Amino acid sequence: MLVVSAHAADFVWRAAGAIALHTAAGGTATVVCLSYGERGESGDLWREPGQTVEAVKTRRHAEGQKAAAEVGADYVPLDLGDYPLEVPAEAMRRLVEAYLRTRPDVLLIHAPADPFNPDHPVASAAAVKARLLAMGAGGVPAAFPTIPPPSMFAFEPHQPDQCGFAPDTYLDVTAVFDRKLAAMGAMASQAYLAGHYRQRAEQRAYQSRYLGAGAEVRYVEAFQRMTPELRDRL
Amino acid sequence: MLVVSAHAADFVWRAAGAIALHTAAGGTATVVCLSYGERGESGDLWREPGQTVEAVKTRRHAEGQKAAAEVGADYVPLDLGDYPLEVPAEAMRRLVEAYLRTRPDVLLIHAPADPFNPDHPVASAAAVKARLLAMGAGGVPAAFPTIPPPSMFAFEPHQPDQCGFAPDTYLDVTAVFDRKLAAMGAMASQAYLAGHYRQRAEQRAYQSRYLGAGAEVRYVEAFQRMTPELRDRL
Amino acid sequence: MLVVSAHAADFVWRAAGAIALHTAAGGTATVVCLSYGERGESGDLWREPGQTVEAVKTRRHAEGQKAAAEVGADYVPLDLGDYPLEVPAEAMRRLVEAYLRTRPDVLLIHAPADPFNPDHPVASAAAVKARLLAMGAGGVPAAFPTIPPPSMFAFEPHQPDQCGFAPDTYLDVTAVFDRKLAAMGAMASQAYLAGHYRQRAEQRAYQSRYLGAGAEVRYVEAFQRMTPELRDRL
Amino acid sequence: MLVVSAHAADFVWRAAGAIALHTAAGGTATVVCLSYGERGESGDLWREPGQTVEAVKTRRHAEGQKAAAEVGADYVPLDLGDYPLEVPAEAMRRLVEAYLRTRPDVLLIHAPADPFNPDHPVASAAAVKARLLAMGAGGVPAAFPTIPPPSMFAFEPHQPDQCGFAPDTYLDVTAVFDRKLAAMGAMASQAYLAGHYRQRAEQRAYQSRYLGAGAEVRYVEAFQRMTPELRDRL
Amino acid sequence: MLVVSAHAADFVWRAAGAIALHTAAGGTATVVCLSYGERGESGDLWREPGQTVEAVKTRRHAEGQKAAAEVGADYVPLDLGDYPLEVPAEAMRRLVEAYLRTRPDVLLIHAPADPFNPDHPVASAAAVKARLLAMGAGGVPAAFPTIPPPSMFAFEPHQPDQCGFAPDTYLDVTAVFDRKLAAMGAMASQAYLAGHYRQRAEQRAYQSRYLGAGAEVRYVEAFQRMTPELRDRL
Amino acid sequence: MLVVSAHAADFVWRAAGAIALHTAAGGTATVVCLSYGERGESGDLWREPGQTVEAVKTRRHAEGQKAAAEVGADYVPLDLGDYPLEVPAEAMRRLVEAYLRTRPDVLLIHAPADPFNPDHPVASAAAVKARLLAMGAGGVPAAFPTIPPPSMFAFEPHQPDQCGFAPDTYLDVTAVFDRKLAAMGAMASQAYLAGHYRQRAEQRAYQSRYLGAGAEVRYVEAFQRMTPELRDRL
Repeated sequence: MLVVSAHAADFVWRAAGAIALHTAAGGTATVVCLSYGERGESGDLWREPGQTVEAVKTRRHAEGQKAAAEVGADYVPLDLGDYPLEVPAEAMRRLVEAYLRTRPDVLLIHAPADPFNPDHPVASAAAVKARLLAMGAGGVPAAFPTIPPPSMFAFEPHQPDQCGFAPDTYLDVTAVFDRKLAAMGAMASQAYLAGHYRQRAEQRAYQSRYLGAGAEVRYVEAFQRMTPELRDRL
Repeated sequence: MLVVSAHAADFVWRAAGAIALHTAAGGTATVVCLSYGERGESGDLWREPGQTVEAVKTRRHAEGQKAAAEVGADYVPLDLGDYPLEVPAEAMRRLVEAYLRTRPDVLLIHAPADPFNPDHPVASAAAVKARLLAMGAGGVPAAFPTIPPPSMFAFEPHQPDQCGFAPDTYLDVTAVFDRKLAAMGAMASQAYLAGHYRQRAEQRAYQSRYLGAGAEVRYVEAFQRMTPELRDRL
Repeated sequence: MLVVSAHAADFVWRAAGAIALHTAAGGTATVVCLSYGERGESGDLWREPGQTVEAVKTRRHAEGQKAAAEVGADYVPLDLGDYPLEVPAEAMRRLVEAYLRTRPDVLLIHAPADPFNPDHPVASAAAVKARLLAMGAGGVPAAFPTIPPPSMFAFEPHQPDQCGFAPDTYLDVTAVFDRKLAAMGAMASQAYLAGHYRQRAEQRAYQSRYLGAGAEVRYVEAFQRMTPELRDRL
Repeated sequence: MLVVSAHAADFVWRAAGAIALHTAAGGTATVVCLSYGERGESGDLWREPGQTVEAVKTRRHAEGQKAAAEVGADYVPLDLGDYPLEVPAEAMRRLVEAYLRTRPDVLLIHAPADPFNPDHPVASAAAVKARLLAMGAGGVPAAFPTIPPPSMFAFEPHQPDQCGFAPDTYLDVTAVFDRKLAAMGAMASQAYLAGHYRQRAEQRAYQSRYLGAGAEVRYVEAFQRMTPELRDRL
Repeated sequence: MLVVSAHAADFVWRAAGAIALHTAAGGTATVVCLSYGERGESGDLWREPGQTVEAVKTRRHAEGQKAAAEVGADYVPLDLGDYPLEVPAEAMRRLVEAYLRTRPDVLLIHAPADPFNPDHPVASAAAVKARLLAMGAGGVPAAFPTIPPPSMFAFEPHQPDQCGFAPDTYLDVTAVFDRKLAAMGAMASQAYLAGHYRQRAEQRAYQSRYLGAGAEVRYVEAFQRMTPELRDRL
Repeated sequence: MLVVSAHAADFVWRAAGAIALHTAAGGTATVVCLSYGERGESGDLWREPGQTVEAVKTRRHAEGQKAAAEVGADYVPLDLGDYPLEVPAEAMRRLVEAYLRTRPDVLLIHAPADPFNPDHPVASAAAVKARLLAMGAGGVPAAFPTIPPPSMFAFEPHQPDQCGFAPDTYLDVTAVFDRKLAAMGAMASQAYLAGHYRQRAEQRAYQSRYLGAGAEVRYVEAFQRMTPELRDRL
């Protein structure tokens, strides 16, 4: 599993449960963070007098790495800068290399639109394009090494119904929710979000009753499938 | 598995493979045909001099039943009439009863829109509504018997890109394609469609290469998921 | 050409130019008015003391017939009532008969959505369904008489950008605009609309400069194609 | 203010705050409940042995009336039945009469789509159509009494991002949230929803930070505007 | 109020009334023109023999400044060039500075799509991104100075229904329409547009009757809200 | 006629029939290939040991030129590189020059979206923008030479219903299908696609029966009109 996160912490709130489920089942997971979110999304750190971008990056690196470790994932920061995040050709090559190296079967990305964030759509488009560049065209030979096409899902935006996010995949993360809590706990500079996303997981669990979930399903993460699925049974 | 078909033959061209896979794996399947398609979709039968609606219905009944049998499914005609098909309250009750009786885990229906057919959208809306009436509200007790929520998929319309059909589920039906051929063969009054849908299955298989399918995947049926999926692993 | 109008006057404001062009070129045209718009859209007539529905219908009949005559069209009122307009099975049969009788090559209808009018979407849906019932399925034989599939266009709603109307066909009606003015003049009970739609035609002409129109194109009506077009040259 | 609710309790969870704000400011409010939700949405009441539809309706009537009273609103049940809810011509006339009688400046309705509920879209469409029948066409005289056009908002569905709900109006209901709690408390037969909707209001408040809300905004209800707004200043 | 205009004149035709209302009420307004529209949208100036880009820019500067002054706004040209307009990183920084300097409560921008103009979508995207870069993330501290989130509206494109423009905010500009006429009069090089937009304002006024406007509302500008609104009463 | 193709072969599979019809009727046609598709879409060539990008480009050049010649078109390669294709300012200028030089009345481009290809959306956006830069604004004078606005159509993507492609123009290419077969035959490095697109043309012909096509229409290409059409008769 490969997760492409715009900022140091995005993957934690929206996808830590999916990662933990994957690694708990014996899979490997890698989180590529395009930036540390050092300028725009490091919240409380910028309340400290004399704060610097470098110091924030160091703290966010440590937090992100710890959070990834809590759910059993490798942490690969690309340090491309934030507000605005940009992904020039050289950065795109590094991202494609991460795909080629990890050969993921599942790819988790930001949703394509987010009218409340300047960097999330950039990260989403970069992750989508990197996938196509790493796959080539439908399995035919190419001038470059290719990987089999990974399934791709968008994780839930902070404001889902402002982003046209239409979740179609509800993932029961109850069994690993302690791991998600630990990962959220590692993001000390945005502690105010942990409660919000615990509630969110409960709300999604509640909605899952309409999909047949029983009371034992207490925490759910929502995703939107971005690629068709090839199946051998409905 | 329950399939709701507007006319006698709709389920054959677009979903016979899915049904055959399901029954081949030991599942049971029921096809509810809302009408025989006797007036508008019985093609060559209306070239015969002196043809009558009753005679066409008899032929279509036999064909539909034979086609369903070829893929291991029960055949339940509701005989509501076609061109136009209507589903008044009493017919809706009979449809809901079929849901309650079969308690399907998978439900296959027409796509919601079809600008080329007066009856398909009516059948789609009726199947969706019957599901909600049979399920009740999110697992809470009700005044009537309820079933667990079945997953629901739309099968491919005759003209998919005219109908806003966006397939997200490609089903490899290679292993049972002989069963689909047999079912299509049973629909003697629309024999001109069998070649068309064989080609369609090949085209869909070709597209599946972009989803990781190898050359052994020769026939595919395409579906669009209409309900979110509750999963325990991505 | 067949035009299906919800109320007595709808066809005048939005399609009189198209009709006049068609008849001026030697074609025949029929306007089916589902209602007279007697209750909700007869404007100034309801300022007259002691006004009755029957008297309004009589006036609207005369106006509609005169307007149709000004652009060379037959006028066929179905008198189904308005606010709300309903099209039960018997009315649908009469509408289908009009299609079978006129065998139109071009069909003009209301746009599917109109959040400002209770009757226009009903008229649009009825016209679309009648077309499918009159056509049958893709040229195969049926239990009933059929017509070749007419091209279908939606004419411009009163508030186009509130209705999701996306015009793709701009029709230069400069040559017959005197006929449209005469038809609008015939609708005495809604005289306040004639100036509005004259301006509208000028605005559409102005927009047509982006499609290559020169200064000689002074009046344009906008339409949205509702059916694909079969061509032998792009 | 007029609220059109499909079932006895829908208005409570999603709009009680808006109603309480309106009445607290001296306005009057009326809730029209199309049905009691007696068959499909009366939850725990159907766990009681020997329960009957009539007994449930009595209980739901009392609950709905009490909840409406807690936020200062009149309660007008139409008792049209649920699962499925239908709004035939006679019921539509009664609904239109409620519009004419209350002459609302604000109208709150269900969102147009809800793939998880058979009755909510029916209630939404009926409320929209009743508004158009009560308004007539753009201020021109009609055969029937008319009202000035009320602004119309959809309140939040139970599963907003499954319904295409795109909230554009966030209402700070902090000042009256005790009234909403009291109204939710009155719905004893669906007590399991009160906690869910308290969380929802907190989540919406959190999202409002992106719209400039400060920490004093603790509870928010979300709405989607369904009609354009005429303003005299941006 | 801050207005971001792709070319020298865009703000005049579509938003001069909104600006004039704002300044007439005592507010301040700034118009940032990304380019002068010197190459592609200076109409009649390019009929003059020996015309040069520099001379056109000088004329357009004077016209734009005069038009802005007529409605009481400051005029800030960024001179980025047109056909094509591009907004590289340095220009984005200047745009963000304009937001930080003016701290607008209302932001007026181009609509996101315009299939008839190469520069308008670029200007729209730049204005949206600059807003996010100037706001930071939902009120949390950042490495850079931030402003409270301004409401954002798209003004009407030249061809609204070709651009997916869905106006939801109609602004009565009757009281200041003389100011808009004066501003339009200042744009001598595109004089052919003044009549067109006067008609447009009348058409929008006419449509406003459906929103309750009386005959005293003679000129209206239409906008589409791009950000949710936080309110304390519906 | 001008065709803008992302890779050497795209125009062949989807538009060779349209080109052949145009040239057979005496028109001229030019194909601009933005890249050779040398890295990502040269299929079998990359099975050859020791293959190089330069060698592939040479082969693809020859194939593309031959294919264009088979349908009577000029072949203009821009050699911008593929996987990823980029169109920087200098390349855009060359593309605009091609428009100015050929002054096309019909422009064929890729569809705007293609989730299975990194280069097709880039080519589509570039072709759209070049058209606007070559046209200027609605016929008014500009600082640069302009052309009359060509009609623009998107040709069919490889996976139409994955791309939101909604064909509205079906072109009967039966009369020139031998030319298309010859052009497809010229693309030796992607021979596996010729059969697929022959089937596709048959499927589209079958669908055209619903548009009134008779049995003599055996091969059809589908297009989506991207610009409104100015007509003088419906």
